Amino acid sequence: MSDFSKRGDKDAVELGRVFSPHFNAAGLIPAVVQDASTGEVLMFAWMNAEALSRTLRTGEAHYYSRSRAKLWKKGETSGHVQRVIETRTDCDQDVILLRVEQIGAACHRGYDTCFYRKVDAAGALAFLRDAPAVDPESVYGVADGS
Amino acid sequence: MSDFSKRGDKDAVELGRVFSPHFNAAGLIPAVVQDASTGEVLMFAWMNAEALSRTLRTGEAHYYSRSRAKLWKKGETSGHVQRVIETRTDCDQDVILLRVEQIGAACHRGYDTCFYRKVDAAGALAFLRDAPAVDPESVYGVADGS
Repeated sequence: MSDFSKRGDKDAVELGRVFSPHFNAAGLIPAVVQDASTGEVLMFAWMNAEALSRTLRTGEAHYYSRSRAKLWKKGETSGHVQRVIETRTDCDQDVILLRVEQIGAACHRGYDTCFYRKVDAAGALAFLRDAPAVDPESVYGVADGS
Repeated sequence: MSDFSKRGDKDAVELGRVFSPHFNAAGLIPAVVQDASTGEVLMFAWMNAEALSRTLRTGEAHYYSRSRAKLWKKGETSGHVQRVIETRTDCDQDVILLRVEQIGAACHRGYDTCFYRKVDAAGALAFLRDAPAVDPESVYGVADGS
């Protein structure tokens, strides 16, 4: 599934119209996931070439779990899938940005986003949500791959 | 500068109020950068402990350049700095989300965001902007560390 185009020179990669993503030494590319309607950043994950290909082909987000060393489809057991509205890449094509419609909640803790806490300069965290959006039991394992 | 708290157990990390970021084997943590007012995802970079400490302490975004193996302050030569409005971390505290006010343009190609192209299923890229927001010459080197 790693049928992506070979990378050209710097200008071709940064200003061209051919998608030629760069995977790191482990064969992975970072993926930032954003709610397409609210702009909220929902999560961060990694993709291998197959996960990226499947995401583009199916319109549903797939990732690669480094801890479990396997491909996973977001929401495959919980039903909390991500429908991809738009896929973007960055200037040097070594990061993916998915703009999605999130069904249910993105985080395995039940919050709409994994970024539910802010950090202050003194090293304390404060919650940005009063409570999880859904019962965490209903999404348990989502951020770990299911 | 790596004076962050030691990590507790999974529940402490994911549901607690102590900031205890996880740095990878190379001593780095991914940082997603978002425009605080528009929600636009601007860029993705890496931080080491010192970059993260300086960001929290100064309120201006600092990163770590893997290619140059050094800490850099965004906009240190171009003036296109990022004023941090809010810093967030994710459930397992191994990713940073900066919500910033971007002075000038985030991308060294002159675009407001590094994510100025979308990907279609056939592997073609389309530009999401008619032209760079600023003359790329004025920000040259920003994404590379200055």
